[in-house]
Amino acid sequence: MSERKLIVIGGDAAGMTAASKIRREQPEREIIVFERGHHTSYAACGIPYYIAGQVKSEEDLIARKPEVFREKQNIDVRIRHEVIEIDAAKKQVKVKDIEKDEVYSETWDDLLIATGASAVKPDLPGINAKGVFALSSLQSGIDVFNYMKKNNPEKALIVGGGYIGIEMAEALLDRDMDVTLIDMAPQVMTTMDKDMAELILEFMKKEGIKVFPEEKLSGFEKDAEGKIKSVVTDKQNHPADLVILGMGVKPNSELAAAAGVKLGAGNAICVKKDLATSVPHIWAAGDCAESYHLLKKQQVFVPLGTVANKHGQVAGINISGGKAEFPGVLGTAITKFRKLEISRTGLSEREAKELGLDYKSNTIEATTLSSYYPGTGKMSVKLVIEKGTGRILGGQIVGTSGSAKRIDTIATAITGNMTVQNLVDMDLSYAPPFSPVWDPVQIAARTLL
Amino acid sequence: MSERKLIVIGGDAAGMTAASKIRREQPEREIIVFERGHHTSYAACGIPYYIAGQVKSEEDLIARKPEVFREKQNIDVRIRHEVIEIDAAKKQVKVKDIEKDEVYSETWDDLLIATGASAVKPDLPGINAKGVFALSSLQSGIDVFNYMKKNNPEKALIVGGGYIGIEMAEALLDRDMDVTLIDMAPQVMTTMDKDMAELILEFMKKEGIKVFPEEKLSGFEKDAEGKIKSVVTDKQNHPADLVILGMGVKPNSELAAAAGVKLGAGNAICVKKDLATSVPHIWAAGDCAESYHLLKKQQVFVPLGTVANKHGQVAGINISGGKAEFPGVLGTAITKFRKLEISRTGLSEREAKELGLDYKSNTIEATTLSSYYPGTGKMSVKLVIEKGTGRILGGQIVGTSGSAKRIDTIATAITGNMTVQNLVDMDLSYAPPFSPVWDPVQIAARTLL
Repeated sequence: MSERKLIVIGGDAAGMTAASKIRREQPEREIIVFERGHHTSYAACGIPYYIAGQVKSEEDLIARKPEVFREKQNIDVRIRHEVIEIDAAKKQVKVKDIEKDEVYSETWDDLLIATGASAVKPDLPGINAKGVFALSSLQSGIDVFNYMKKNNPEKALIVGGGYIGIEMAEALLDRDMDVTLIDMAPQVMTTMDKDMAELILEFMKKEGIKVFPEEKLSGFEKDAEGKIKSVVTDKQNHPADLVILGMGVKPNSELAAAAGVKLGAGNAICVKKDLATSVPHIWAAGDCAESYHLLKKQQVFVPLGTVANKHGQVAGINISGGKAEFPGVLGTAITKFRKLEISRTGLSEREAKELGLDYKSNTIEATTLSSYYPGTGKMSVKLVIEKGTGRILGGQIVGTSGSAKRIDTIATAITGNMTVQNLVDMDLSYAPPFSPVWDPVQIAARTLL
Repeated sequence: MSERKLIVIGGDAAGMTAASKIRREQPEREIIVFERGHHTSYAACGIPYYIAGQVKSEEDLIARKPEVFREKQNIDVRIRHEVIEIDAAKKQVKVKDIEKDEVYSETWDDLLIATGASAVKPDLPGINAKGVFALSSLQSGIDVFNYMKKNNPEKALIVGGGYIGIEMAEALLDRDMDVTLIDMAPQVMTTMDKDMAELILEFMKKEGIKVFPEEKLSGFEKDAEGKIKSVVTDKQNHPADLVILGMGVKPNSELAAAAGVKLGAGNAICVKKDLATSVPHIWAAGDCAESYHLLKKQQVFVPLGTVANKHGQVAGINISGGKAEFPGVLGTAITKFRKLEISRTGLSEREAKELGLDYKSNTIEATTLSSYYPGTGKMSVKLVIEKGTGRILGGQIVGTSGSAKRIDTIATAITGNMTVQNLVDMDLSYAPPFSPVWDPVQIAARTLL
């Protein structure tokens, strides 16, 4: 097995986690990683904090550089190398060396596709105006940073009120910009239910973001130099000298599809539990591949760092001859906007309804700490449970400091197939600087009993 | 049933939670609560923060006053009334009205004993010196506060490095006092394993506390006015003008024992799962009663606010004719010393060893947030698992801001009978301001696989 040559396409979380795992298991195996960008193993989730100036250098976001993989792990990482074709029959990839502008071929015995995802950039008039950015790679973050430094934009417009949209709204507000956010949905954070999203919307407005829900992007106007001047929607025209597109991401799966690899949920690469694709000896991991949702009981497209890392780990074990299965996701996610923390796991009320489940849900408000302890704040917890059985289906939290990480208690309870009664009964930690006597998650559970 | 007269002895968390629950279920029932102190339903856990000056008034620690119980809930709360005898055969208590110095009797159909626990005050020479305090009731906290205001002590000595000891060390340091802590054990925080306790000890020393482990208290020296002058141990003499005893608590179970009620773990009142005692129609709840430990599979004495509240709830349901069982404890606890957060749940390595379990354990160090995010700090996580099955037995956390509440993830996993593999597989929340990609709890689990 260890003589089999491995090619990995994509040098970020999933690809490099897998490559590193395989190297540990198979010290002699030939491993080549092609990465079309400049960077390996970087923290894409940190980009908004880099743009905000909270993370001092882009270097801080890079966990391990290509030369370290080459020198310390004997992994042949080739950056600025783009795989442009996979030939599954010949077990061969065609690679373009971007710097040299040369194309060559490499053969493989095993191929791991870890091409990630790209930010959606709709084909609208003026989309290529200078100052319009879609965030995905570290390079795109650096581009925004450099553009801001050079042009000192004052009026930012963000398209999309999801995770990237909210984090970038915070970042640009921290940069003293005037920030407007539009979203075609009637709420921000569509992964949350509307009642919880309202709390976020109100807070964002209070902090000075102009938010326009139910507004659809229709194009961009440039000035004489080709720089962005304003954003056109179906309702109005927003002057802006910087635009960030947070309109979601799509899996980079075209290369795989062209090679005959089956696609699945949201056009992500269809994978089995071991992360094998439909084509023998081709594996896929990370943002380009789908994941099994434990509650929806179906494959979903969840492009998140935690998932990419686990995918990489599982693919690495299987490619090196071990046996592992991806355990599935609950759709757990967390973010913050200034002092407001936001998290969710499992099914929202809307998702439970869509799945036709017989559910019950409730939202409570509690204090984060003992009500008399300095720094205590408000937090709201929403729980969704199955009627009859009381099984916990999902949770959402919006609140001040110390609120959101409590979602892990709910995620763990869902994983353990626990009921709302179990949640009430549990021996959770309490002291005045950390929690009220009944943890807010348990208060939410109690009101559902 | 609702005609049955109920007497509750003790007006704090367990007693008043039960009384309130019963009132909701049985609006007409006669309920009398005797409380020997001045206060009802107060947050004893908040006392150190009140003494530190972080909680502005003792009023803030009182959740509900006697008159509110009387007026809003028709519960006949009689403060400064001490029950001095229970006659189980006659179903009658003898009560002393402390203010009037009169003794009278009241009959009952059901009796709930919720007498709490008292701080241990060993019978040593000089123990009654002015300025020596054992903390338990709110009044004892007020006494310390007033003593400090009047006497401006400068040199504090704390006996015992448990929760109260550590929290009081913080409080008195915040009051700019010179603080010494002695403990007869070879470590502070004996509910933690020694390796974790070392981290706490080092931090306390760095913050300026003088800590002397393995020193046994032998007495106190007073000045001419009867005020504390120094504390004598088996090793030396510590000058001190304020002494706090944090030598543990003992259940107030003498009254019950004298009435023929069986005692159990640590001399706490022996209770069944429904919180009935060995004597029909007598119930016990809160710090005076024992609790079932889910992992030790035996009754234990765990005097904690969370437990008292749950006891009160369960006793209230059963006394009002419903059916509920106390779900048991894991020994979950949390505290902090300045910026250092401390928590534990389940079995420590020492406890696992004592129980003769075939266990494995490991401690890891990780960052609390993404390593590049401002404010990230160090945290250590220790996990104890069962060999072979991988079942999680316990966890301990010591670290900076955001560390300790993660113990709830471990407590939930233990409750759900999960294994260390389940913990690694779980979909926990991640974003740079909250966690590294792998939550430190999962990093700890991974290293045990």
